[in-house]
This record gives sequence, structure tokens and C-alpha cells, in this order.
Amino acid sequence: MSVNSFGHVFRFMTWGESHGPGLGVVIDGCPPGIALAETDIQPWMDKRRPGQSRHTTQRREPDAVKIMSGVYEGRTTGTPIHLMIENVDQRSKDYSKIAAKYRPGHADYTYDAKYGFRDPRGGGRSSARETAARVAAGAVARKVLGETIAIRGYLTELGGIPIDRSRFDDAAIDANSFFSPDPVAAEEWEAAVDAARKDGNSLGAVAECMATGVPAGWGAPVYAKLDGELAAAMMSINATKGVEIGNGFEAARITGRDNADEMAPGNEGPRFLSNNAGGILGGISNGDVIVCRTAFKPTSSILTPLKTVTRDGEETEISTKGRHDPCVGIRGVPVVEAMMALVLADQMLLHRAQCG
Amino acid sequence: MSVNSFGHVFRFMTWGESHGPGLGVVIDGCPPGIALAETDIQPWMDKRRPGQSRHTTQRREPDAVKIMSGVYEGRTTGTPIHLMIENVDQRSKDYSKIAAKYRPGHADYTYDAKYGFRDPRGGGRSSARETAARVAAGAVARKVLGETIAIRGYLTELGGIPIDRSRFDDAAIDANSFFSPDPVAAEEWEAAVDAARKDGNSLGAVAECMATGVPAGWGAPVYAKLDGELAAAMMSINATKGVEIGNGFEAARITGRDNADEMAPGNEGPRFLSNNAGGILGGISNGDVIVCRTAFKPTSSILTPLKTVTRDGEETEISTKGRHDPCVGIRGVPVVEAMMALVLADQMLLHRAQCG
Amino acid sequence: MSVNSFGHVFRFMTWGESHGPGLGVVIDGCPPGIALAETDIQPWMDKRRPGQSRHTTQRREPDAVKIMSGVYEGRTTGTPIHLMIENVDQRSKDYSKIAAKYRPGHADYTYDAKYGFRDPRGGGRSSARETAARVAAGAVARKVLGETIAIRGYLTELGGIPIDRSRFDDAAIDANSFFSPDPVAAEEWEAAVDAARKDGNSLGAVAECMATGVPAGWGAPVYAKLDGELAAAMMSINATKGVEIGNGFEAARITGRDNADEMAPGNEGPRFLSNNAGGILGGISNGDVIVCRTAFKPTSSILTPLKTVTRDGEETEISTKGRHDPCVGIRGVPVVEAMMALVLADQMLLHRAQCG
Amino acid sequence: MSVNSFGHVFRFMTWGESHGPGLGVVIDGCPPGIALAETDIQPWMDKRRPGQSRHTTQRREPDAVKIMSGVYEGRTTGTPIHLMIENVDQRSKDYSKIAAKYRPGHADYTYDAKYGFRDPRGGGRSSARETAARVAAGAVARKVLGETIAIRGYLTELGGIPIDRSRFDDAAIDANSFFSPDPVAAEEWEAAVDAARKDGNSLGAVAECMATGVPAGWGAPVYAKLDGELAAAMMSINATKGVEIGNGFEAARITGRDNADEMAPGNEGPRFLSNNAGGILGGISNGDVIVCRTAFKPTSSILTPLKTVTRDGEETEISTKGRHDPCVGIRGVPVVEAMMALVLADQMLLHRAQCG
Repeated sequence: MSVNSFGHVFRFMTWGESHGPGLGVVIDGCPPGIALAETDIQPWMDKRRPGQSRHTTQRREPDAVKIMSGVYEGRTTGTPIHLMIENVDQRSKDYSKIAAKYRPGHADYTYDAKYGFRDPRGGGRSSARETAARVAAGAVARKVLGETIAIRGYLTELGGIPIDRSRFDDAAIDANSFFSPDPVAAEEWEAAVDAARKDGNSLGAVAECMATGVPAGWGAPVYAKLDGELAAAMMSINATKGVEIGNGFEAARITGRDNADEMAPGNEGPRFLSNNAGGILGGISNGDVIVCRTAFKPTSSILTPLKTVTRDGEETEISTKGRHDPCVGIRGVPVVEAMMALVLADQMLLHRAQCG
Repeated sequence: MSVNSFGHVFRFMTWGESHGPGLGVVIDGCPPGIALAETDIQPWMDKRRPGQSRHTTQRREPDAVKIMSGVYEGRTTGTPIHLMIENVDQRSKDYSKIAAKYRPGHADYTYDAKYGFRDPRGGGRSSARETAARVAAGAVARKVLGETIAIRGYLTELGGIPIDRSRFDDAAIDANSFFSPDPVAAEEWEAAVDAARKDGNSLGAVAECMATGVPAGWGAPVYAKLDGELAAAMMSINATKGVEIGNGFEAARITGRDNADEMAPGNEGPRFLSNNAGGILGGISNGDVIVCRTAFKPTSSILTPLKTVTRDGEETEISTKGRHDPCVGIRGVPVVEAMMALVLADQMLLHRAQCG
Repeated sequence: MSVNSFGHVFRFMTWGESHGPGLGVVIDGCPPGIALAETDIQPWMDKRRPGQSRHTTQRREPDAVKIMSGVYEGRTTGTPIHLMIENVDQRSKDYSKIAAKYRPGHADYTYDAKYGFRDPRGGGRSSARETAARVAAGAVARKVLGETIAIRGYLTELGGIPIDRSRFDDAAIDANSFFSPDPVAAEEWEAAVDAARKDGNSLGAVAECMATGVPAGWGAPVYAKLDGELAAAMMSINATKGVEIGNGFEAARITGRDNADEMAPGNEGPRFLSNNAGGILGGISNGDVIVCRTAFKPTSSILTPLKTVTRDGEETEISTKGRHDPCVGIRGVPVVEAMMALVLADQMLLHRAQCG
Repeated sequence: MSVNSFGHVFRFMTWGESHGPGLGVVIDGCPPGIALAETDIQPWMDKRRPGQSRHTTQRREPDAVKIMSGVYEGRTTGTPIHLMIENVDQRSKDYSKIAAKYRPGHADYTYDAKYGFRDPRGGGRSSARETAARVAAGAVARKVLGETIAIRGYLTELGGIPIDRSRFDDAAIDANSFFSPDPVAAEEWEAAVDAARKDGNSLGAVAECMATGVPAGWGAPVYAKLDGELAAAMMSINATKGVEIGNGFEAARITGRDNADEMAPGNEGPRFLSNNAGGILGGISNGDVIVCRTAFKPTSSILTPLKTVTRDGEETEISTKGRHDPCVGIRGVPVVEAMMALVLADQMLLHRAQCG
């Protein structure tokens, strides 16, 4: 039950820090015979890659993924798949001045409290660069799931500005820098992010992820509930503070009658007349669309000076320079998608193990 | 990585259904030499026990817990602790009529989809009776944590009516039937629950849980993050749809400047001038109060007739009689507390394993 | 990764001590829909049950197994199966005198060193009574494996006296008190065991277990190798000191040419002209008979006085009275069978998870 | 519970094949603050490195290990340590001719049976090259254990020729090509290995490993027994067919009186007057020397023609050319040491987790 791995039978372990030679992920338990090439993985890496617009960090990383093992003549062999990504554009000097001060909102103090010391370069292991490994692994999970299952992430809220769901346009998502399904909201978000950046401030966001095509029956009733696994997956991403399944906290505010997803005869099993449940009942998928939302806090690294203390316990102020995303939630979208894929692939195999 | 167990080194597995002879939990990895008697566990069971007011199910279960192993002369031996609770007041006949219809909001259909058939009596394994085993295990976890760590759960919202935090009174929590820290809200909730019950309807709720006294340093940066573990723990409880750490989704709506928990010199390490983070930074406890909120959907079993289908795929209606909580979130409070204790005990031991 | 559970996806956790109210096992991950009744389990319990001949302990335990959960209308539901066995014939007073002395060959001293104290009654958790839970779980594993797989255990050696394999008679195994496939050896063993008992001494034994009908393809190349899993399973049984797969240590003594299992075309895939490998190649079953041997040391509880020390570190002597098996290896046979079944059932499901 | 990882809290996962770009291991759960450099690891790699004498494979691999993560300024950070080793001297053409024939004693057929196809180059994942990753991880485990614990492996038998224990000389072990503690046996083994190689044949061996300085109290009574873990660890190494703890199978052949390790007062706790138990009682270390023996079968790749079948099921013969160790057991010695270190480091942390 190691602390850097995730999953039951389709299981992965990640390694690497922001400013070391690179990072990677070892995937264990992948079914054999699946066609897999670096070109299957790279497009997902590119979605998450920094430096693509002024709204994300200006660190330039090609994030070129390399398959190191587990694939022979273009197919997975069933043995561990190691995917590796080199770090190219680290600038450790950016961090030298602030190593002695605890940055609010970061793991600086808690690392020292836990481990006695830490690698201060770019957050070390806590850097969101770790999520590149998840995206790479998620690309493999998508291949395991096959083409009948589609996973789609996008932002539904940025800086407190929600999308208008009546304008939801799937085609819009990749047509703006914010993974916004609402082109109007995307424009408002652009203005908000620009304003925050100029102000030395940052913004939070909410990422929603849908999975369609998941058959009824994946998951388990109690401790490996599909919703519990998704919650664990999403809350393992940097900067997340909340997770919802289906209508989430809204469910706590409406009555049982209004919350009920009534059922009617469908083509394959029953169909649901609404989807407040987010496709999961009693921890098990019900055949409807799986829906999960994750809250990302605003980037903690801001130019605005904040009160803090030094390692030696002295009062001081800190203003974090360096190349940071003004809204980490934006690049959180491909990560949320990857975690959805990884949970589903694992549950698919776990279900097959128990129920054939 | 079984589907009915939870935890890394302080690990438990539960068994049992609503209408079988009983249920229980086996706790593995408990430190030796801890004083433990049934009287340490029973008070927590009694908090969760049904039938204590008209606002919860009228099923009468003494929920008397029996220590079956792992304790010798009043102390834990370090070997598995099996805690068992008999089912006394099952009434299976209540369920006979509805076994052929899928209850909306329940796992009826998903069970059939997964397992091919199911035990229809009281939800079988999906029954919230399973949570009695968690509360029993949680009592042991509290003993492991010791007296310097205090865990406190309460409702902050019921049926969409929030508490007024300016009226927060710790002493009030156990003085009403709703675990409300706000006595005024408790009265409003009473009226709301009574109205819902009379109307054949049900209500949701939000349970908050705080842990004080947790030292800085528990948790891990990535996949066994303290917040990730709490999210998994809470979302494994029946009827939960969302989890928040600290200010949760609110963090996504405010700026980095407003969300920053500034730091100042404290007695032991830094202290935080605010606690939006809910006591966790980078997955590791920061010494501040741990805060977690869980959304419970309204009880799915309601008298109001709802559209559904039969096992054979025929259109029908269902109205669920039987003895159900009009608001399952109320009795969720001791369960949420138990899961907090179980996660913390596990993390305490995991931290000790790695960092001594 | 708890210390009282075993298995990956078909996983079980045991609880209970020699002199508590009972013991049991919770099985997680069992496929649904399998016919299961207490009468499927009891015959295997009876094979292991003490007090059936003068060659095993005279403790009288009915070892009646009770299904507490996970079965509905005679079929497994896919949820945890709890099997419970009451302790009936404990006599704790037998142990009172020797609690202060460390018995050589027992875990008395190591328990104190680990846990700081211990339950001295009948070895507590270390008692071979724990193996009753394994036999119960093994009966369920056999049902999961189905009727095409047959598992057969027997002794090949007792007190240094080997069977003559030319006299191997499957029908003989259950016709003597020693699970001997060689009726002549059984008679020699009887004399040896009688002599040892009269002399206040004890004997060791070697148990072999065969599984026929296992298809090629179960297992894994590295850390979950079928042979590695069997080794872990067998060495988790009390009093075991060695494990062999196929020809075992003999393989280290012959040449590669002599050890080679040559292959020829068979009905389904290749057949092997010999089976030195014990049915496993590269950690994966090859379709031939799985063969595993386990060495049991002689019972440590003997009447012969032995030098030892007290808890306080004083020199003393001990002579262990009480009701002990003169050769624990005899009753080890049904346990070895159970562990074989449990490993195979887990591997069957794990293989299905990865390879469909 | 992945199939390519090992350990509970000090846990590692390996990746890589014989003829891919390289191989590696990710270590999770390593305590922070431990001094670690590549120079701490390389000497152990060099012991296992091929091509050092004519008695091992002539493949020339520098096996230079590179620390990719988890170390900052010379100390472990508590985050995953990735160790990578490049493959330099692969010659895939050696294997092209035999890809269509199943080599007896190899995983060729079982891989095809499991995965449907395989990477035929040098055994792919089944190659003993995987053990380089174990040796690297084992070097880290030694650092975790510290200098008070010494782990020493050597051969006690090769080609059926045992050492004479009266000539046991610790200094001799590294002074010959066979890790033999008996210089006379080393000469006999040299002649035997030379003869086997010339004859197109191969030999097996038995490797013993001792750990001194292990305190009493590590391990667990049942499924994570120290002996069970060692058995699993050793049987996960390629070409192993048997494991013994202490006197192993000999224990099954002597009486309880002769097998008893009597106890006497010692400096710290009791001392044992003999060590048949191999330092483990009831699954827990007793403070005496831990002793474990592992049987390696003779190398399956031999020049002698053997009967076999093709992938298409045709009868054929095979004679395996290529660069193979005439006795894989020799290079098994550093691997056995590494696994001992890895098990002990994990048990040390697991004990600390539960018992403080």
C-alpha cells in the first residue's frame, strides 16, 4: 500500500521531482496485446503541456514521453510499462532566495515537519509536474478502456464565474485556452485571468469530467465504491479542495422527491429520466454518464506579498516570483480526465476479476 | 487491495448485511498494549443507534458490540480485533413486495447489473447498517490516537438550511436530535424534517468534522495525501455525494490573495492566521485543525410514488414503505467522525513507519 | 497490506485466538452466484479437526462452521463472506503454570519482544487453531475453482521415514490416520508416532500437495509468481520450515540436461515428458500438475524437560504438558490443501482481471 | 496489489526487459534523511554484474546505476527513489532463430499461454536481468537497515557438491568466483562448472543468506511472518525451486527434542543454545542470526539438444546457443542478499508502524 501508487489491479506508481532529471510512471497490470505507441500518449501530454498560452506557466517543457518497457512490436506485453519524461527547462535559481521562507499555501512547512528537510526547487515532489506522469498513464488507461468509452473534461467555473450550461458546446472546449464549453464564459475568464495576473493575484476553478459509455456494474458497494475511488483520485491532484459526484452538494439541499432519478424501460436495461446520481448508485455504475467535479484552489504562488515565517521561526514576508500558472485549474483539466480514465480502467479489470 | 477493507497499516475489513445474523469488523495492525473494553466502544455506537428520536428510523437495534478477539486482560494484543454486532430487529417481510422493482436512488439495479442477483432484504450489503461496523472500528481508532486528538462531527446544513456559525456552540451538539451546533437551526431543522416525513419526502444534509491536536507532518505528498484519504473515506459512506477539505469549493471562487493562509511565529512551529486549507498543505497536516465536510443526499426510500421499472423491464411505480430515516445525514455524523478517526490512526502509524 | 490477510483479489482476513470465544475468516472478492452452504465447508473442517485419533491433540472441538454473511438463498452474493467457528473445549488452566517461562520453539519470547506482553493461553494468536479459518476459506476457494481442478494433499515423509512412491495409492490417503498414500509407510509412521509420544518427544513431517486441472497461464513472471505465492502461503502456516516446488532442492543437485522437462505435442498445447518444474515455468502455470512440498518441524511442545529462561531472565527448565499433537504435520495436510486452493482461486481471478 | 511490486511500507516496483533500453526500480516509502549516492549502490551491482569470470554469461553490461529521483544533496527525501540501469550489450539477433520454438525450462510457452504473445528477446521480462533492479533496491535497503545489521550470502552447494562447514571462512567468499566460503569446495566447483560448460550442460546451486544484528521482534504471527516474507522474496527470483529457513527440511526429519533451540540468559534477553529455527519463532525474529537457503535449478539454456514443440505445435528439437551462465545460482548470491535486505527493511518499518 505504497504512498506513491494508485489502483488495485491496473496500478501505477509515479516518481520524479520538478527539478530532477525527469519524471515517470510505471504501470502494472495492463492487459496484453493492446496497440500502444508514443504517439498515442503525446497528444494528451500536449493538452497539459505548459507554455501554450499566456494563461499558464511560461516554463517550456516539450514533455516528450518515452516508452521504456512493456511494449513489443507496438503492443503491450502485459509486463510493466514505464513511461518517462525528461525535465528540460528547470531553473533552480528561481527558488534559491525563497528556500528559507515558508510559502503560504505550499507544502514547504509541512515537508519540513514531516521529513526534517526538503528539496526546495520548484516544490520538489509536490510540484504539479508530477501530474504529467498521470496524464501519460491516463493515455494508456484510455487504450485499455477502448473506444466505446469517452472521457471529456472541461472547466465549469473559473474565478467564481460559472459557465451558462444552455450554451454548452462540446466543440468549443478545445477552441479556447480554458477548456471552456461555453465560448462566452471563456472570454470573461480571459479578462479575469489577465486582470489577476497583472494584479499579482491568482484564481481558482472547477473542473468537470464526464465519462460516457461506461456499462452498468463497475464499482463495489463499500470501500472500493466507484465514487469513492474517483474522490480519492481527484483529491490526490495538487491544489484540489473538493469533489462532487453528480449533483454533489446540491443533493444535500433538495428533497428526496426532487433528487430521485426516476427510471423507465430502455434499450439495454432501464434508463434514467434524470442523472442527479452522476451515473453511480450504491458505488456501482448505472449505465448513465459518470459525472465528477473537482475544485481547484487559486495558485498559491503569487506576487502579492504575504506574511509568513522563516525556517528559523522568524516573522517575514514573501512574494513568490517564478513562472507560475495564474490559474492551476486550467491545466488541471487533462489531469482530471487522466484520473477518470485510470480509475475506470482499474474498475473494469477489477469487475472482470470478480464477475467474469 | 480488497474491496471491503480500508487503510494501509491500521486496516479494517467489514462484513455483514442488513438482514443477516449480524455484522462486524476485523481491525488489523492495531498497536499492542492499548486499554480497550466494550465500554469504550458502546457510547459511540449509541450515538449512531437508530430509533432514538422520531427523526431517525424506528428500527430498534441495541447495537451491542462484542469484542471477539485481539484483547487480553483489557489490553490490545497487536493481533486482529474482531468486533461483532448482532442484528436483532430485522423485518424482512417489509421488503418482500418491492424485491421485483428497482427503487430509484438505491443500488437495486446496479447490484443486479454487477452480480446478476441480490439480497433484497433491507439493501443487503448496501444498507447503512454497515456503518455500525465503522463506528465500532472508529472507537478503537480514537484509542490509538489518544486523548490529545479530539474529533468532533456535527451538521452544518439540513434540507438546505445552514447553521449560523456565529451561534456555533459546541455544547449544543449533543443537546438536540440533529447534532446541530446551532440551537436555532436545530429547531428549524426539526420543523423541516417533520414536514418532510409527513409529506412522504426526505431531506439531505451536510456533516462537518473537525480534528484538533493533529501534529504537523501526517500524510503524504501524492497518492496517500491526508485529504485524498479523507475524501476516499467519506465518499465510501452510503448516500454521500461530495467532500470538501477546508473551504472546499469556496476556494475555487476566491482569489489567491484571499485564500492564502498567512503564517506567523507560533509556540510550536508556525501558526496560521486563517485556516482555509482545513489543516492540510500538500497532502500533509500542518498542525492546524483538520476540517472536512461531507454532503449526504436525501434518503432515497420515500413514500412518494416514483416511476421505475421491474426486474423484467416493465414500467411501474414504487412507493417505499418500511422504517427509514427521513434524513440519513443525521446518523451520518457519528460515521463521519469514525472515518476521520480511522484515517488519522492509519496515517499516524504510516508516518511513524516512514519517519520514525 | 495488512498482516492478517492474504491474497490479491480473492482475499481473506482471519481473526481469533486459541482460547477466545472463537475464530473466523472474512473472504472478500468472491465471485457472485456460487452455490455455497455450510455443508460444503464442514467436510474439510472435519479432516483437520483435532481429536480424531490418538495421533493428534485430544482437544475436542466440533469446529462447526457458520456462514455469517455473503450468502443469500444458497448462493454467494459477491459481498464479504464471514465464516465463524466457536471455541468450545479451551482449558486455559493448562497454561497457567508455564506463562512465566519461555517455551523453546514457541513464539512466547518473540511475542514479548514485539508486543511487550502476550496472551499465554494456548499460544494465543500463534496457535495452530488459526488454521481452522484457512480450511474454511479454502473450502470456498475450491467452489470458486470448480470441479475441473482437484487439489490433493498427503504426507510423503514422517519422522524421517519417506513413502515409497512405487506404492503410491490415492485411495489409501484417507484410509489411515496419517494422510499417507503408502499404506506400508503409514504403519511404520504409526509405530514411530506412538514411540515418540511415549518418549515425551515429537516428530516432523513433509506434506505434498498436488493440483490437477490448472490451465496454463495462471501466475505472473515476477513478484506475484505462482510459485512465490505458494511459497508465501505455505510458509505462513505454523511450524513450517521449508517449501519446494516440483523437484525443489533436488533441482539444485542435478544437471540442466537431467532437469529439463522436454516437450511434445499434446491435445491442448504442448505436453511435458517430465514434471520436475512442478507445473510452473517462469512463475506461470504450464498446464501440468502443480506440485508443492512443505516441511513441518516436530511439535515444539514436548514432555522432555528443556533448558529455558523465565520472563524475568532467570535460568529454568520447562516440560510442556497439555494436549498437543505429537506430529503437527499430520493435521497440516488439510491446511496445505486449503492454502493451495486459496492461492489458485486468487490467481484465477487475477489472471481474468488482466487477460480476460 | 500489483504483480510487479514487493513490500508493505518499504515497497518497490521494477520495470524493464532484457533487450529494451534499460530497466529500473522505484522505491516507495524510504525514510528521509538517509545518506545515499550512486557509489553506495554500485559495489553491489558489480558483485552481480555479468562477464566477470568465465563461469558466468559473457554479456558485458556495466550495470551503471543512476539515481533519477528521491535524493537531494546526498540524502533521501522520503519521496520515490527511481534507480535506472541502461541495457548496453543486448544482441537480439541471438534469439531470432529460436523465437518460434518453446525452450524447455523457460517461460516461452507459459507466456504465450497467458498473454497470447511475447517478447522473445532474451526472455523479455522473465530475464534474470530484472534482478539487477533488485540488487540496486537492496543497496538502498541496506542503508535503511544501518550498519548494525550485516547481510551475507554465499553458496553452500553447487552441482550437488556441498561445502564442508568446518572449513567455513568468511574471508574466502569474495576471494573466488563462486561466493564459496569453503576454498576447497570452490576448486571442486570450478572443475565441475568447466566440465558442464564443455559438455553443453549446466548446474544448479544452493545459496544461503545470513543476517546478523536483527533485533528480536520483527515480523508478524500469521500472514506477514518474517519467514513467509523471506520465502515469497526468494521464490520470486528466477530459477528458484525451494526455500528453507534455519534447518529447513532437516527439521522434518529430526525429533522435537533434537530440534529444540534451548534458551539461556543472555546479555539482552535470552540467548539460544542452537539455531535450528534460523532466527525466527512464530514468524517473528528472535534476535539470533536469520538464516535462509534458496535452491537454484541448473540453467535451462543449454547446448544439448532437447525435444520440444514449435508455437504451431510441431515436434522439434532445440539447442540453446547465446551467452548464458552455466550456473545461474552463482550470480543469484547478490540477489538473495538484496531480497533479504529488502524484506528486513520493510519489516523494520512495519514493526515501527505498529509497535513504535
